[in-house]
Amino acid sequence: MKFIVQVRVMPLKDLLDPQGKAVLGGLQSLGLDGIQDVRIGKHIDLHIEAESPEQATSIASEAAKKLLANQVMENFEVSLVG
Amino acid sequence: MKFIVQVRVMPLKDLLDPQGKAVLGGLQSLGLDGIQDVRIGKHIDLHIEAESPEQATSIASEAAKKLLANQVMENFEVSLVG
Repeated sequence: MKFIVQVRVMPLKDLLDPQGKAVLGGLQSLGLDGIQDVRIGKHIDLHIEAESPEQATSIASEAAKKLLANQVMENFEVSLVG
Repeated sequence: MKFIVQVRVMPLKDLLDPQGKAVLGGLQSLGLDGIQDVRIGKHIDLHIEAESPEQATSIASEAAKKLLANQVMENFEVSLVG
């Protein structure tokens, strides 16, 4: 069966996010008031052929650990969507 | 009140995603079988000070249209999380 698994990779809370800070500056100079902080990460859709939803999720977690996320600086969340 | 709004920016379905293709190659050469396609986009958390959830969502949509997403090549989804 085919599954789509989403992996969200975000910079750790305690680390600076220079990309987010740059975008925050950009939004403020566009006059968008009210935005106080911006954090930017990656959203990855994996299309996986697996025997069960559990297997698909497990393949996605392994992919995140091995390649998609750098766990020194980032954390990740895996969620099955379909 | 403070709100957190998530903006997800993904390449349009009909467009090639070279970053996704490169990651797919990497995952396959790591021996992760079963992954058939990878698409990579951005996940952005906006911390917004607004009077209502509707206002926060509307600020986030404006930010996405003006800066976060390039609507020629990407689509975006806005969702309020807290």
